[in-house]
Amino acid sequence: MAKREYVSISVVRRLPRYYRFLNDLLKNGFSRISSRELSARMGLTASQIRQDLNCFGGFGQQGYGYNVEQLRDSIGSILGIDRKFPIVIVGVGNIGRALAVNMNFDAFGFQLCGIFDVSPAVVGKRIAGLEVLHIDEIERFCGVSSPKTAVLTIPTAAAPDIVRRLVGCGVRSFWNYTHYDVARSYKDVVVENVHLSDNLMTLCYRIKYADEKPPEPTANDEA
Amino acid sequence: MAKREYVSISVVRRLPRYYRFLNDLLKNGFSRISSRELSARMGLTASQIRQDLNCFGGFGQQGYGYNVEQLRDSIGSILGIDRKFPIVIVGVGNIGRALAVNMNFDAFGFQLCGIFDVSPAVVGKRIAGLEVLHIDEIERFCGVSSPKTAVLTIPTAAAPDIVRRLVGCGVRSFWNYTHYDVARSYKDVVVENVHLSDNLMTLCYRIKYADEKPPEPTANDEA
Repeated sequence: MAKREYVSISVVRRLPRYYRFLNDLLKNGFSRISSRELSARMGLTASQIRQDLNCFGGFGQQGYGYNVEQLRDSIGSILGIDRKFPIVIVGVGNIGRALAVNMNFDAFGFQLCGIFDVSPAVVGKRIAGLEVLHIDEIERFCGVSSPKTAVLTIPTAAAPDIVRRLVGCGVRSFWNYTHYDVARSYKDVVVENVHLSDNLMTLCYRIKYADEKPPEPTANDEA
Repeated sequence: MAKREYVSISVVRRLPRYYRFLNDLLKNGFSRISSRELSARMGLTASQIRQDLNCFGGFGQQGYGYNVEQLRDSIGSILGIDRKFPIVIVGVGNIGRALAVNMNFDAFGFQLCGIFDVSPAVVGKRIAGLEVLHIDEIERFCGVSSPKTAVLTIPTAAAPDIVRRLVGCGVRSFWNYTHYDVARSYKDVVVENVHLSDNLMTLCYRIKYADEKPPEPTANDEA
């Protein structure tokens, strides 16, 4: 089947989930899986899965199902996780530090090449094998290492100024943990926002709702 | 307009975003806003917004727009963020600690009442005003404080056992940062998953895609 030119963002957002499920299956010794079994595990319909994967040319064979490793690798390569996009973390409070230490950037398309902060308590210290640099070194650093992506784990109030500087240095994409609306101010940058409090509010609604009547059937459909 | 009995999870997931935008508008001195202006800021169509809000009985007035504070408060109360659901954090590595210290649980429907870990390095220490307890105290603690919700910020490998114990103690909802599929094993619990690496892979795809051709028009539509 031919690949589609344009793939909707909602399909794209499901790809990492396919990747994660397939990776877990592989770790658990599965080498092939029927579309029915995959759909049961993922809580999607088999037709939804076929439709999603067809956007990228289609996978699987009638009567055989999917080869788990092959499908995982194909999705990984569609996602581009074999790339090594240089990325910097700006702000090493608890969340920035958690990402620096625990997030396996290499496995997801990135290479952590710099960590920045303003606090004398951390500047000069080593985290995840890198020396934390003062944010005022960012211009010099970008001149040499040209990171195109930055993780924003700074207070929201500091974000407008920092983003302006980063964009000025050639950064073109952000993994944004602040509540600053980067995409609104910079139309040509790519932004993925992480709004943990949105998630917490959704949880609150669903708990309240579960208290009042039985949970809706699709409640866990975005696991 | 009458409230609908059943509200789809995708509408529910947009509510926190409305809440956040309206809260920001209020902080920036807006007291009313037209549906056109709200839709421009949120990157949704005016008709989508009307449709979403109509699920809960409708707000706003023809020719006047929305009263920002009133709409924010109504959405907040639909979400239930005025509740004080008792919640515990299990695991205070960097992410658990970041949530304990920085997340304003009170503002989003919860009250943090306990923090648990296994490491002698943190058990007995105070974080966010609470003494970190050993996980083996969880049964006793739940007998007294009856938290119904737990934040899982533990290694994925430890999750199945911990979840089993928590469910045994009456915990019925999870804010899950691990890759353990809680909802698959426990059908009657409410689970909100935070898969940060899914988000990172989506970012990777979009950067790769932006390199190859102009970014798709809807790229930032879930900001």
